[in-house]
Amino acid sequence: EILKRLAQTNREFLPGYGEDVYCSSAGDKIRAWCGENEAQIHFLTGGTQTNQIVIDSLLAPFQGVLAAQTGHIAAHEAGAIEFTGHKVLTLPHHVGKLDCAEAEAFLKAFYSDENREHMVYPGMIYLSFPTEYGTLYTKEELANIYDLCKRYNMTLYIDGARLGYGLASRACDLMPGDLPRLCDVFTVGGTKVGALCGEAVVFTHGNTPPHFVHFIKKHGALLAKGRLLGVQFDTLFTDDLYERLSRNAIDRAEELKALFTQKNIPFYLDSPTNQQFVILENVKAEKLKKSVRFAFWEQVDDTHTVYRFATVWATTREEISFLAGLL
Amino acid sequence: EILKRLAQTNREFLPGYGEDVYCSSAGDKIRAWCGENEAQIHFLTGGTQTNQIVIDSLLAPFQGVLAAQTGHIAAHEAGAIEFTGHKVLTLPHHVGKLDCAEAEAFLKAFYSDENREHMVYPGMIYLSFPTEYGTLYTKEELANIYDLCKRYNMTLYIDGARLGYGLASRACDLMPGDLPRLCDVFTVGGTKVGALCGEAVVFTHGNTPPHFVHFIKKHGALLAKGRLLGVQFDTLFTDDLYERLSRNAIDRAEELKALFTQKNIPFYLDSPTNQQFVILENVKAEKLKKSVRFAFWEQVDDTHTVYRFATVWATTREEISFLAGLL
Amino acid sequence: EILKRLAQTNREFLPGYGEDVYCSSAGDKIRAWCGENEAQIHFLTGGTQTNQIVIDSLLAPFQGVLAAQTGHIAAHEAGAIEFTGHKVLTLPHHVGKLDCAEAEAFLKAFYSDENREHMVYPGMIYLSFPTEYGTLYTKEELANIYDLCKRYNMTLYIDGARLGYGLASRACDLMPGDLPRLCDVFTVGGTKVGALCGEAVVFTHGNTPPHFVHFIKKHGALLAKGRLLGVQFDTLFTDDLYERLSRNAIDRAEELKALFTQKNIPFYLDSPTNQQFVILENVKAEKLKKSVRFAFWEQVDDTHTVYRFATVWATTREEISFLAGLL
Amino acid sequence: EILKRLAQTNREFLPGYGEDVYCSSAGDKIRAWCGENEAQIHFLTGGTQTNQIVIDSLLAPFQGVLAAQTGHIAAHEAGAIEFTGHKVLTLPHHVGKLDCAEAEAFLKAFYSDENREHMVYPGMIYLSFPTEYGTLYTKEELANIYDLCKRYNMTLYIDGARLGYGLASRACDLMPGDLPRLCDVFTVGGTKVGALCGEAVVFTHGNTPPHFVHFIKKHGALLAKGRLLGVQFDTLFTDDLYERLSRNAIDRAEELKALFTQKNIPFYLDSPTNQQFVILENVKAEKLKKSVRFAFWEQVDDTHTVYRFATVWATTREEISFLAGLL
Repeated sequence: EILKRLAQTNREFLPGYGEDVYCSSAGDKIRAWCGENEAQIHFLTGGTQTNQIVIDSLLAPFQGVLAAQTGHIAAHEAGAIEFTGHKVLTLPHHVGKLDCAEAEAFLKAFYSDENREHMVYPGMIYLSFPTEYGTLYTKEELANIYDLCKRYNMTLYIDGARLGYGLASRACDLMPGDLPRLCDVFTVGGTKVGALCGEAVVFTHGNTPPHFVHFIKKHGALLAKGRLLGVQFDTLFTDDLYERLSRNAIDRAEELKALFTQKNIPFYLDSPTNQQFVILENVKAEKLKKSVRFAFWEQVDDTHTVYRFATVWATTREEISFLAGLL
Repeated sequence: EILKRLAQTNREFLPGYGEDVYCSSAGDKIRAWCGENEAQIHFLTGGTQTNQIVIDSLLAPFQGVLAAQTGHIAAHEAGAIEFTGHKVLTLPHHVGKLDCAEAEAFLKAFYSDENREHMVYPGMIYLSFPTEYGTLYTKEELANIYDLCKRYNMTLYIDGARLGYGLASRACDLMPGDLPRLCDVFTVGGTKVGALCGEAVVFTHGNTPPHFVHFIKKHGALLAKGRLLGVQFDTLFTDDLYERLSRNAIDRAEELKALFTQKNIPFYLDSPTNQQFVILENVKAEKLKKSVRFAFWEQVDDTHTVYRFATVWATTREEISFLAGLL
Repeated sequence: EILKRLAQTNREFLPGYGEDVYCSSAGDKIRAWCGENEAQIHFLTGGTQTNQIVIDSLLAPFQGVLAAQTGHIAAHEAGAIEFTGHKVLTLPHHVGKLDCAEAEAFLKAFYSDENREHMVYPGMIYLSFPTEYGTLYTKEELANIYDLCKRYNMTLYIDGARLGYGLASRACDLMPGDLPRLCDVFTVGGTKVGALCGEAVVFTHGNTPPHFVHFIKKHGALLAKGRLLGVQFDTLFTDDLYERLSRNAIDRAEELKALFTQKNIPFYLDSPTNQQFVILENVKAEKLKKSVRFAFWEQVDDTHTVYRFATVWATTREEISFLAGLL
Repeated sequence: EILKRLAQTNREFLPGYGEDVYCSSAGDKIRAWCGENEAQIHFLTGGTQTNQIVIDSLLAPFQGVLAAQTGHIAAHEAGAIEFTGHKVLTLPHHVGKLDCAEAEAFLKAFYSDENREHMVYPGMIYLSFPTEYGTLYTKEELANIYDLCKRYNMTLYIDGARLGYGLASRACDLMPGDLPRLCDVFTVGGTKVGALCGEAVVFTHGNTPPHFVHFIKKHGALLAKGRLLGVQFDTLFTDDLYERLSRNAIDRAEELKALFTQKNIPFYLDSPTNQQFVILENVKAEKLKKSVRFAFWEQVDDTHTVYRFATVWATTREEISFLAGLL
């Protein structure tokens, strides 16, 4: 089905179809999906690019961004934020999550420091939903963090590179329509949920920063043929495709969890989304590597290692069964 | 034919096809095309992004890039080069072209200036081929400029966003195989020659700068699904598609030139490629605008204006005839 | 007299004297001098540093600064502005001066360009007073440029590294009290007018940018012992010392002009300030170099060269007479 | 004595004395002091500026600097390092010190990570000596860290803003002559040891980065009148003045330690240098504040706080006695 849609779409790349039609239609559908008419939507190509541009365009030059130590922007984006001159201010993580009370303590300490002009001002909180550990914030946790942001004149940015998988999780108490009331800007990741590439940036209150298109251009991220992104998001947000793709990954992840439990393979942490972290004996892992793809996470001891298994929109039951046969 | 290939390709986006296969196959084909086995090839999404990353990764922090005043990087890329901290040092243009003797005079003056540590060191020459005015450098002109670069320890970078249209021009005395001997790095633009997006960067002597992938990531330009670019370039460089698409634009441009001549519409400059610049009466231009797309270039006087007409890979004879009927 | 003051001052560097006392007293005196109670004054160490910080703190990330091609920031500051990510947009110079009509034409063209989001927004005009050619803007010229800035929502910044020499010129129709009404921010250069180091930055309407101290710190320009600058400016603005030092340079420059005229040495341009540009035969210049310091400016032909002779606050009549003996 | 020297020096600021004489003489004396003829020495104005320029000029664009969490560059320099585009990679601190084994573990993990191109490369280790907590590395600890740097192709930079106080400490097992063999570059802080301003940067193996003067200019840190710094360092390194000033601070700090011990005021940590950290009851601290200057460090509980007392080159026995009377 996905392929058919993409193939149809591809034919529509034919002469005459301007980018406007698709990008604007995709924008309308995302606005409807998250129930916010005032939302302003832009399409970018990849996750690091999106984080870089959103953060650079929203922060003042004297500000940095507060993130959990494990936040993607803090660790695995090649210094892309620092490249724009902004510091990533890190706080401890709790299974990938930022703690609101710790953030508040940090802010209180900052604003009571007489030398704060010698320090980077915290201008934004960055969260990923789900986090890099596959965990989720509750609606209440997000509300508290957003409230904190407002009290300290900060922007709340939710990186939704895997947003679909978070919303589809059985443990998630958020609906798409909650997002606009819980942050200033969030992204809807396409790359990890079936698109060839593409992230949608949603400014939730008509609060796109001035000259945002200039920022996109300056970062070399303005596509001459923007319809490439528009068409994909238009398709993803038609007939609940985004939701269905996401749900598939979650359903397979639940099967995966059941499988690990059944096989007495211990979990490293409890993840309610598409990424599952388990502890494998190194010997067993070496064998599995020959036929299954999974990622090294961290070493436990000389004979055990934590690995990450991720299901995606395209993972099939057969693949789970195949893995079951190997374990 | 193009559409068929893209549609076929699209089906190949199916699960399991790794990016390596396509990117590496596309690289092989481009190496064969330009006859240089040592060439190293990377794929990026857009033109500004490509210029930004190539220039940033090749310049030392104390260096800037020398370009014609009209060079794309000097004018229309939103300060993307300055954003990386590098200055664009401009020289006068001659119908879009940089003059080798003027560049040499600039370099001589720079190196005889006792205060040169107070100035930005020229570390690279940037050329576009064809230029922003549709004009072309001859093989001899490029050889002279490259020789100048070597004598002054500079890199020569040729921006080939419209490279195909330059090589297909009847006035061009260069073959693809000449490029690797005439510069350190050049790009092969896909976006303007039929691809959805994509530029190939060709380092001609195994001279990819260290950690180039890190630069790509830091600039937010590393695609998670690199095959999107690999597949397109693999297709473009199969069965001479790139050349055939380019030649179509040139053939149509020649018809366009004949048409303007026949209708006694004066040319603003003599362009041998797909972009044609003519002077129209404002009244006539207003009428044409209703049914044809062309771009404002500059005002001549109160009643006349220079406009740019560009043919592309997809322009048809019917479209030229349609225009003929209107003139 | 100057030495005595500096020596006295130096003794006052003794323990206990805080920076506040001197910096704030110096600020008061400069406010009185330019007749503007609302002016906010900061002290920085050098000229390039000052230009870099003022420009970086006032421009938005999508803006650049408009300057004459010959402006110090465009040529001789090692790309210090581009290092902050901002582009210097250059206009032709007229004996060092920017032409208001040309600037207006540039702005009109910019704002009528549909692709302006692809370009750097002009956010400030930078002028030097006197210019790098020793020339001066009239009060009317400045008023016109400032009016232009207001109409286009730009900041006007006057670089006064040699301000004293400009105000002391017999051709100058400006009083210190005119400056606050003619621009948003100007500097009063100390380094070139008798101080060991130091530039005063004057925001004329209580318009210091937010967190300016953070910018100073971030640029590594915050002196732990700020009194070093405060004391010097406090001294310079006591008993008209700044004016007297400046006037000495101008008086000597007038003698220098008379001397060149008398000796039939042609002027390269007509400068009313402390920098004089004359054309010397190379043979004569070579001889002079052995006993007098002057700077190469540019070559005229194989046997003639333009040189710059600059008087300063400390130049004596004896030095002028000594030169007269040599010519 | 210091004042006399500075006053004498000031008179020598008279016309005719070039910066070369003083800066080069100061350089010679520092070379002699640290026993390294190949050392190359530059003078800068302040500490943050120095850290910013040294780090920016030595790191490649894909590299960051490794530092203890408490390192000055990580916390109190307003993001000055990130402003240059480089990331500060932090490790836990141990009473202000970086642990060599932890650094090695970090580096091993980095180089075994397959995704390291997505991360910032560690290109330098930054240490402060003494640290921000007044603590010192032993000669052996530095030798181990330097060895680690060499094995991982990193630069070792020692920030010596308070170097004199470290070397003068009774707990220090380093001589000035050890420094060139223990790192690639170190600084000798003047600002905190009696100078009006000024830090000397010592590249220990003739390894000044190319175009270092350009970096200084680009950062706005090149003083027109460099002799201001040269004269001060020339004086500081004549007749052991630097050592004597430093020793005074340490002698007074020892008296301070004795005093706190005698008064049963608990130490927060054991510092062998001029900064002493003690825990005071809030009530007592409030009283003391009226007549003595000391700095808030961190809160212990509702009624107790850690404060920092710092002696300097100018602290007198009388001041210590005065404090004794108050405690």
